[in-house]
Amino acid sequence: MEKINKNVLNHVITQRNPQSYKGNYGKILIIAGSTHFGGAAILCSSAAIHSGAGLVTLATTPEKFTAVNVQIPEAMTIDYSQKNELAQAIKSNDVIAIGPGLGTSSIAKGVVKAALNLTTENQTLILDASALTIIAEQQLALETKANIIMTPHQGEWQRLSHLPIHEQNEKNNREQLQKLNPNAVLILKKHLSEIYYQNQTFQIQAGNPGMATGGMGDTLTGIMAGFVGQFGYSLETVSAALLIHSLIADKLYKENYVVLPSKIITKLPKYMKKFSQTK
Amino acid sequence: MEKINKNVLNHVITQRNPQSYKGNYGKILIIAGSTHFGGAAILCSSAAIHSGAGLVTLATTPEKFTAVNVQIPEAMTIDYSQKNELAQAIKSNDVIAIGPGLGTSSIAKGVVKAALNLTTENQTLILDASALTIIAEQQLALETKANIIMTPHQGEWQRLSHLPIHEQNEKNNREQLQKLNPNAVLILKKHLSEIYYQNQTFQIQAGNPGMATGGMGDTLTGIMAGFVGQFGYSLETVSAALLIHSLIADKLYKENYVVLPSKIITKLPKYMKKFSQTK
Amino acid sequence: MEKINKNVLNHVITQRNPQSYKGNYGKILIIAGSTHFGGAAILCSSAAIHSGAGLVTLATTPEKFTAVNVQIPEAMTIDYSQKNELAQAIKSNDVIAIGPGLGTSSIAKGVVKAALNLTTENQTLILDASALTIIAEQQLALETKANIIMTPHQGEWQRLSHLPIHEQNEKNNREQLQKLNPNAVLILKKHLSEIYYQNQTFQIQAGNPGMATGGMGDTLTGIMAGFVGQFGYSLETVSAALLIHSLIADKLYKENYVVLPSKIITKLPKYMKKFSQTK
Amino acid sequence: MEKINKNVLNHVITQRNPQSYKGNYGKILIIAGSTHFGGAAILCSSAAIHSGAGLVTLATTPEKFTAVNVQIPEAMTIDYSQKNELAQAIKSNDVIAIGPGLGTSSIAKGVVKAALNLTTENQTLILDASALTIIAEQQLALETKANIIMTPHQGEWQRLSHLPIHEQNEKNNREQLQKLNPNAVLILKKHLSEIYYQNQTFQIQAGNPGMATGGMGDTLTGIMAGFVGQFGYSLETVSAALLIHSLIADKLYKENYVVLPSKIITKLPKYMKKFSQTK
Repeated sequence: MEKINKNVLNHVITQRNPQSYKGNYGKILIIAGSTHFGGAAILCSSAAIHSGAGLVTLATTPEKFTAVNVQIPEAMTIDYSQKNELAQAIKSNDVIAIGPGLGTSSIAKGVVKAALNLTTENQTLILDASALTIIAEQQLALETKANIIMTPHQGEWQRLSHLPIHEQNEKNNREQLQKLNPNAVLILKKHLSEIYYQNQTFQIQAGNPGMATGGMGDTLTGIMAGFVGQFGYSLETVSAALLIHSLIADKLYKENYVVLPSKIITKLPKYMKKFSQTK
Repeated sequence: MEKINKNVLNHVITQRNPQSYKGNYGKILIIAGSTHFGGAAILCSSAAIHSGAGLVTLATTPEKFTAVNVQIPEAMTIDYSQKNELAQAIKSNDVIAIGPGLGTSSIAKGVVKAALNLTTENQTLILDASALTIIAEQQLALETKANIIMTPHQGEWQRLSHLPIHEQNEKNNREQLQKLNPNAVLILKKHLSEIYYQNQTFQIQAGNPGMATGGMGDTLTGIMAGFVGQFGYSLETVSAALLIHSLIADKLYKENYVVLPSKIITKLPKYMKKFSQTK
Repeated sequence: MEKINKNVLNHVITQRNPQSYKGNYGKILIIAGSTHFGGAAILCSSAAIHSGAGLVTLATTPEKFTAVNVQIPEAMTIDYSQKNELAQAIKSNDVIAIGPGLGTSSIAKGVVKAALNLTTENQTLILDASALTIIAEQQLALETKANIIMTPHQGEWQRLSHLPIHEQNEKNNREQLQKLNPNAVLILKKHLSEIYYQNQTFQIQAGNPGMATGGMGDTLTGIMAGFVGQFGYSLETVSAALLIHSLIADKLYKENYVVLPSKIITKLPKYMKKFSQTK
Repeated sequence: MEKINKNVLNHVITQRNPQSYKGNYGKILIIAGSTHFGGAAILCSSAAIHSGAGLVTLATTPEKFTAVNVQIPEAMTIDYSQKNELAQAIKSNDVIAIGPGLGTSSIAKGVVKAALNLTTENQTLILDASALTIIAEQQLALETKANIIMTPHQGEWQRLSHLPIHEQNEKNNREQLQKLNPNAVLILKKHLSEIYYQNQTFQIQAGNPGMATGGMGDTLTGIMAGFVGQFGYSLETVSAALLIHSLIADKLYKENYVVLPSKIITKLPKYMKKFSQTK
């Protein structure tokens, strides 16, 4: 299992071309949130915006639009219960991240199916949280031609892989991932999170127990979406997103007993700047 | 009456185990807020999250969900008028804090009764504000097997104990507490607040008159819930929660004529970090 | 015309008694806001809270409750279209401030009449903005036994006094004030604002043109309510409230081209602390 | 093509007259926002307020009022679907900025037509975003006697001018602008944005690729409105607004990988102060 080197951040976070436009930095669709889990959608979208995504649209339930407008006025919103509108958005964005706070209602199930069915090559589909639960429960096949990134924690991975946590070792995880989709990337969130892709495995050397709080995973998903939108889908991009999330948290943990997701988010532009300048 | 020593903070606020997860830091249910008292629910939940609680769910009236999503995106929300959903939440959380801004409507009364009826051993039930008023008015028995912490101010304690404020001395308070529930902890909020538990009494040596403002008690309740969720129910934990609330307020009071609850809340992670490091 | 001396701030802003409670610092009712002017209600209530008022209730239209809960969780809210509830609130608070963003709807008119009819001695009634417009248009008599403070700008004073701005001199203003209510305090907001009370006139020596922006008057009204609630109704209290508002603005104006009301509000606790310490 | 010199900021941003009032700094009407694009309206209005506009009214859809009250309590709101109310507002304000997040619904179309029809000389009409799209699609004539400022990015300019981006050179742009309205100002937003007015062309020497993010144009429109409201309509005012937006962004870009619009907005009062002091 290879360690992820901090240099990946210097490689991935490139200096921006002076002659560039919003469209160069990714069109991101976040499909997230539900009546009882509104904050997850906000954290995820805010993380995408603060990580530099060009254009971020949040597909959520309309009752959350006000909170989104307040917290992240830079984001656009659509109603994910409007099927045609959602389908159009899935087809026209570069990166689709689905799951944070989505819940497992019948609408949520339809939305997950739409994301799996309507994405195609040249798109990246990030599956997180409720989306993974729905895929496991509904035994949905991951047949999209889009690049797939899954970001389960150990409990979600158990539901997907049928591996109890104590059997979640490198060999077993790799085998189960191959069965789900041989080209998907798996980010297994845990103490020293791991990345699986085909026959490769990487481990992060950062993170801390102050991150053990609600909303932390939603934030990672947003950063992941923002990074893929800007830097393109690659193992390096995925590693960089995972790493910067934990590195900022480690910095905050030096002075804070608990690391709140919203604090990580606001630090993103400054940390990314630093890594973009040191080559 | 014993003085609470600051060392309690160093004892209680332990360094976190690197291999730990959200579930290790408590599942907290805050039952709070109503149409006219929405802010109390927000302050209480925010305090719990900033004190490091692993997972915080706020049961409130749905009209408050937007404000919650904006102010504390890390929190989940449920509608406390949905009886089954509320019952499930009461049963499945480790700490239930009830009362801030709850009001005394018939829904509120039903909610308080549910909390008293459905909690069991290995849970902690924190009773504050409107919950105490309802218990006094409805003469509800405190028969739950959960650990009970009550946090009245002197007026609320008068309603509960039938002791006029000038008769609220150590002996009388102890006697009345024994009648209400011989194993309950009483935190009597006043100038130099006191903690009663069985035949023990403790007094805080902190606090200031800049804290005499709305929302201060709601904030204490949230910290109490967060501390019990992380550090377990004990007299030391209760003392530490009470003390850190006033110590942060004292620090703020040096530079502020009035100490707003929301400022105390944002300082929690830094102060807790300091106490976790000095043993 | 006497100049207001800065020493008034040291006199008025007393150090708080360690053994004091929320109730010692005033129960304030702000009656403000309407569909199109929601921000005025928020700024006014927030100013009252940041100036140290013990308990602040905002009577407004319910559609504003969410914004209030987000911006000032320390405030309670009631619906001013509920006549009985409003009447009860008017009777049970120490200071009633009415007018910011209230508008001139028929509900607003009823609310202003209720404030004039239901307040009694030992209360202070602060009349601002739309309340003054309604009083002028409806030719309402100021017959309450409460202490009255009016805070018009020159246009509002013209409507009340029938004095065109160029005739608003010391002698005329005093005469017209006597006709409206011989015991009322008039704060005439302008470049170098003036205070009129019976045969006395005072002028402020602070303020700047960066304050020429929306919401500035609403903020003054909130500070006035907070000061009277804490320090009692007196000419000194009124002068201190008027002065600290402009002094903080002058400090901000040194580094800001425009002085936003919300920035003044957040500076209140620190400035009040300084004046409380220098005697 | 002339370069815009930084000195324009010192010329335009004058020191305020001590004897001045809100009315001296412009009455601004922002017509912006729709169900799915609420944030654009907030950013635009907030930028106008932070740039020092005297009074800002946001005409939007009522479902956005709560978010506006939270984010910019200094702003007033009206419902743009109320035709009479909107018409009155268009007639009574000095500067009307229309378009950010407005969308292209039939209501939006009616609103754009109202702005074109009801504005007259001595007013300035700023056309941005959706308003430009509607004008292009509906082939609306720019026949108002108000001063016109258009702020398209290259795609919007293509729709208006029928010039593909690679044909958008100085000569062609000038010709097409003459056809649309010979007295209008065109601000063409791109890498090194350009200003066209009659036979003059100016180019900005500031800006950076960190600005390539959602909401950046909405913010410029708000600053433009605030500047015209305070400093009067002139090419110098327009240049100054365009320049300060990018200069602040350049400063932020030194420490931030992406420059969020909301951060530019909060820096406006300080930067304007500096330029007002260096002559």
